[in-house]
Amino acid sequence: MATEGDVYDRNCPSRVIANHATGQWGSLVMGKLLDGTKRFSELRREVAGVSEKMLAQTLQALERDGLVHREVHPVIPPHVDYSLTPLGTQAAERIRGLFTWIEDNLPHLLAAQDAYDARRAENV
Amino acid sequence: MATEGDVYDRNCPSRVIANHATGQWGSLVMGKLLDGTKRFSELRREVAGVSEKMLAQTLQALERDGLVHREVHPVIPPHVDYSLTPLGTQAAERIRGLFTWIEDNLPHLLAAQDAYDARRAENV
Repeated sequence: MATEGDVYDRNCPSRVIANHATGQWGSLVMGKLLDGTKRFSELRREVAGVSEKMLAQTLQALERDGLVHREVHPVIPPHVDYSLTPLGTQAAERIRGLFTWIEDNLPHLLAAQDAYDARRAENV
Repeated sequence: MATEGDVYDRNCPSRVIANHATGQWGSLVMGKLLDGTKRFSELRREVAGVSEKMLAQTLQALERDGLVHREVHPVIPPHVDYSLTPLGTQAAERIRGLFTWIEDNLPHLLAAQDAYDARRAENV
């Protein structure tokens, strides 16, 4: 087993896991699960825009990586809960740190976009 | 201008920026630029697997968001340097925190994958 990962090496398994955790849906799902255990239908609603298929694939990849725990309750009708594992919680806190930073700095980021677009318009 | 962003709202501009910063290539490019200014060709080599077209698109989106600075040196042949802005440095530190966590925890993550695959094989 490799003792050290390198996300910049396309053959390192850490690169694949990084893609799951930073992917468009994986990052949002993990950030949302930091609020607590959720059912599939709750995640589908709260992670706006995700399709049923993409959410199922995202959760399965994160479960396989040991970041998300899937609990099937044998009731009728059956229901399935998703939560972060202790490992997943550590990763999700880092993801949420980035999201919170983006949300908090949105005015600066939007101002940069406006300035970029204005420069572009001048050069046309 | 919105005073608060919400990355879970698909109509919030922070969602688009989050996708740039957490996207497969955006996150790797920003992590790599934390090492210092790079030329396009260096990034292309160091972010293994990125195509020329994807790298150009990624850098342009990050430049528009105010996260990456593009400096054209009017020499012959011309060369272009990319670096993080002060805003981009703050975002990249958070991205690198996640990558480092994944690299450091790779043995645990791989063990989880093995356990998942073994459970799957039992249930076939």
